[in-house]
Amino acid sequence: MKKISLGLIGFGTIGVGVVKLLQESGELIEKRLGARLVLKKIADLDITTPRVLTVAPDVLTTKATDILEDPDIQIVVELMGGYEPARTFIMEAMRRKKHVVTANKALIATYGNEIFQAANKEKVDLRFEASVGGTIPIIKTLKESLVANRIKSLMAIMNGTSNYILSKMTDEGKAFADVLKEAQALGFAEADPTFDIEGIDTAHKLAITLSLAYGKRVDIENIYREGISRITRQDIEFAREFGYRIKLLALAFERGDLVEARIHPTMIPFDHILANVNSNYNAFHIIGSASGSVFLYGQGAGMMPTASAVLSDIVDLSRGILQDVSRLVPYRSLGEDIIDDIRLVPFSEIQTNYYFRFMAADKAGVLSKIAGILGEMNISIASVIQKGRKEEGAVPVVMTTHKARERDVQEALKRIDQLDIVHEPTVFIRIEDERF
Amino acid sequence: MKKISLGLIGFGTIGVGVVKLLQESGELIEKRLGARLVLKKIADLDITTPRVLTVAPDVLTTKATDILEDPDIQIVVELMGGYEPARTFIMEAMRRKKHVVTANKALIATYGNEIFQAANKEKVDLRFEASVGGTIPIIKTLKESLVANRIKSLMAIMNGTSNYILSKMTDEGKAFADVLKEAQALGFAEADPTFDIEGIDTAHKLAITLSLAYGKRVDIENIYREGISRITRQDIEFAREFGYRIKLLALAFERGDLVEARIHPTMIPFDHILANVNSNYNAFHIIGSASGSVFLYGQGAGMMPTASAVLSDIVDLSRGILQDVSRLVPYRSLGEDIIDDIRLVPFSEIQTNYYFRFMAADKAGVLSKIAGILGEMNISIASVIQKGRKEEGAVPVVMTTHKARERDVQEALKRIDQLDIVHEPTVFIRIEDERF
Repeated sequence: MKKISLGLIGFGTIGVGVVKLLQESGELIEKRLGARLVLKKIADLDITTPRVLTVAPDVLTTKATDILEDPDIQIVVELMGGYEPARTFIMEAMRRKKHVVTANKALIATYGNEIFQAANKEKVDLRFEASVGGTIPIIKTLKESLVANRIKSLMAIMNGTSNYILSKMTDEGKAFADVLKEAQALGFAEADPTFDIEGIDTAHKLAITLSLAYGKRVDIENIYREGISRITRQDIEFAREFGYRIKLLALAFERGDLVEARIHPTMIPFDHILANVNSNYNAFHIIGSASGSVFLYGQGAGMMPTASAVLSDIVDLSRGILQDVSRLVPYRSLGEDIIDDIRLVPFSEIQTNYYFRFMAADKAGVLSKIAGILGEMNISIASVIQKGRKEEGAVPVVMTTHKARERDVQEALKRIDQLDIVHEPTVFIRIEDERF
Repeated sequence: MKKISLGLIGFGTIGVGVVKLLQESGELIEKRLGARLVLKKIADLDITTPRVLTVAPDVLTTKATDILEDPDIQIVVELMGGYEPARTFIMEAMRRKKHVVTANKALIATYGNEIFQAANKEKVDLRFEASVGGTIPIIKTLKESLVANRIKSLMAIMNGTSNYILSKMTDEGKAFADVLKEAQALGFAEADPTFDIEGIDTAHKLAITLSLAYGKRVDIENIYREGISRITRQDIEFAREFGYRIKLLALAFERGDLVEARIHPTMIPFDHILANVNSNYNAFHIIGSASGSVFLYGQGAGMMPTASAVLSDIVDLSRGILQDVSRLVPYRSLGEDIIDDIRLVPFSEIQTNYYFRFMAADKAGVLSKIAGILGEMNISIASVIQKGRKEEGAVPVVMTTHKARERDVQEALKRIDQLDIVHEPTVFIRIEDERF
C-alpha cells in the first residue's frame, strides 16, 4: 500500500485532535483513499506536557525544521495559529515543494494573497477548510458545489463563542458579563475574549469567505465590524417583543459590481433559520443565483470537528499526490491571475432596518421631537413601544424603522443624542428582516 | 482558452436548466475553471416543443448516437431519467471513454454496482451529485468532507413533494387529498404521485446515500418503506399535543457492523432541526464520529437548483480532464474492490418509540385491556391522551411509548385489533425523540 507522509506543526488542541482522528479512523481513511497516511513528525515547542493521547517519542520534535527539511514529508499541516512563525514555516514548506494544510484563519485572511502567490509559483497545493466554519464544509461548498452560482447573499454565524453568549443571554436572561465568565470556565471563551466578542475572528473568516465568493481579496480593516459587548438584556427583551432574536452575523450581499459586507449584532425574525442556531454552533445561509437557499450548520470549533475538516483537506491533497497532480481546484474560487480585488459598498451607504432605544425624559412631546428628526433624515418609523411612567427619570422609547440609510441614521442619532430630553446615548441595532 | 465539449441527453426541465445556467454563468465558470464549457449537442426525442430558451438548431438532435459517437465530446450529461434507455446510453458513453454526469437516482440506486464497475473498467469518471438532495452538496460532503468519519446517524427529508404535503397539512389543517391536488396544480407533484408519496423516490436516494456512507450496495427492496398517504389531520393534531411534527424521514443508524435503515412518517420534536424544514425543502442531518452534527438544507429539486448541482459535477470532471486525470475521488466513498455490501438490521428488530391511536369503545376498562396487552409485550407507555364522551361509538385513545421493539409492537397491535372493544385498525407512527 502506498504511503503519504505528513508533518504536523502545532500540537495543541486541534493538533491533538488530528492525531487522535488519524489513530481512530486510520483504517477507514486507508480504505477510502487507497493509501496510508503516516504522521512522520510532530513539532511543538512544548513536547513534554502530557496530551490526551500518546505518540511514539521519536515522532515528537521541538524543531519545525525537522519537518520542513525532511524530503519524505509531502504534506505539512500547520496548526500552531498566529502570524509568525506560522507564515514563515508555511512559506518554507512550499519552497521545498510540500503541500500545506492549515486552519489558520488570521494568516489566510491577512496574508492570503502572498501565500497563494507563493503556492502558485512553487506549484504546490494549499487547503484551509478548517479555517472557516470548523467542521462545516463551507469552503468546498463555495468553491466547488456552488461553482456555477453568483453568491447573491451570505448570512452567517461564524463565531461560536459569541453565539454561545448571546444564546445564553437570550434563553436564560443573564447579563453579558456573567455569561462570558461561564463561557470562560467551560473553555468556550479565551481568557482574553476580545477576538471573539469584538468580531475580529468573524472578520477574518468573512474575509476568507468573501475571497472565495467574490474575488481576490478584501482588507479586513475595510469591513465594518461591531462586537456583542454592548448588547444588554433589555435590548434582547425588546427584540423579543418585536419578534426578533439578536445574533452576531457576518453579512455579505452582491450589489451590482460591489459587495456589501458587514459584521454586527443583528436582529432577525424568530422564524429565520439562523435565529434557531444556538449554543456554540456556526451556520451559513447562502443564496446562490441558481441554487437558491443553501444552509449549512455544524460545530465551528472544537478538537474533533475541526480535526475532521483538517483530515478532509489532507485526504483531498493525498488523492492529488497519488495521481501526481496538484491544484485541481484553485486556492480561491477564481483563477489567481484573472480576478480583481473586491470593491466594497461604503458602509455609510448601506441601507437596512434599524432598532433604536432612546432613553428619554418621561414627559409629553418626546416622541414627537425624536420622530421629527428621524423624519427630516428620511427615516420612517415602522413600530414603537413606549414604556413610560414606571421609573424616575429616563424611560426607554424603542422603535423599529423601515429601510434607512446608515449615513442618515448616524446623523439623526447624533442630533437626537444632543437633545436635552435624551439622557443616554441612543442604542441602535440593525435588523435583517428578510425571510426565505 | 481550452475547451471541454459536452453532450446533453434529455432536454426536459433539468436539461433546460443546465443549458440556461451555462448561458447565464458561462463566463463565471470560465474564470473559475480556466476553460470553456461548450455544449456541442443536445439529444431529445422531442426537439420541436418550444423551451424557455433557444439554442442553435444544429445543436439539437433526436439521436443520442450523435452524442455517443462524437469523438469530440468528453462529458455526457444524462438527464432523461428512468432505467432505459438511460442505462444503455451511459454504458455506451463510458465504453467510448466519455465521462458521465447524471441526476438519475433510480438508475444509480438500482444499477449502481454494474455502472461503477463499467466506469472503473473503462477508467472514466461518473458523478451524480444531483441525484440526491438536488442542490444540496450531500454527496460531496459524505465522500469528501466527512471522509475521516464513521456516519453514526443520518436523518433526512429527501422528498420535496411529501414534505410540501405534510407541511401544508400541518400548517393549514388541510386533508391529504386536498393538498395533493394543490401540489399537483403547482407542479410540485406528478400526475401519478406514487413514487413521491409512497417513499420510493426517498428509497432510491437513501440507497445511494447508504452506499456512500457505509459500503457497497443495499437492495432497496430490503429497506423498510412506508409513505405518507395514511397520515390524517387527526394524527397531526395529536402529534402536536405531544410536542411533535410529522415528517417523512429517511433514517440510517450505525449499529455495530450492521446498518439500521428505514423510511417512514416520523414524529420528531418541535425543536428538532428537521421539524422546521418546511414546504418543498430537503435537509440532511448527519452525525459523524468526529464532526458531530452537520446539517445541510436546500432545494431538493427544481430546474435551477438541480442544474447548479449538475454543473458542479461537470466542472469537477473538467478539472480532471484539464490535468489528464480521472477518478481522483472514488465513485462511492470506498475503493470499489475492497468494500462489502451493506448488512441491514432486520426491520423486526429495530427499537424506537411509538405513537398509537386506538379507536376504541367509549367505556370503562378499555385502557386497562390495551395496556395489559402492551405490558405483556414489554411495551411501556410514556403518555396517554384519552378523549372520550364526545362522539357516539369509537373514541380515540392515543399514547406514546418508551423504546419498544418493532416485532413486539406488531404482535401487540395484532392482538389489540382483535379485541371487540377496538373498532378500527390501530394507527401507529414511529417517533424519533433524540434532539441534538
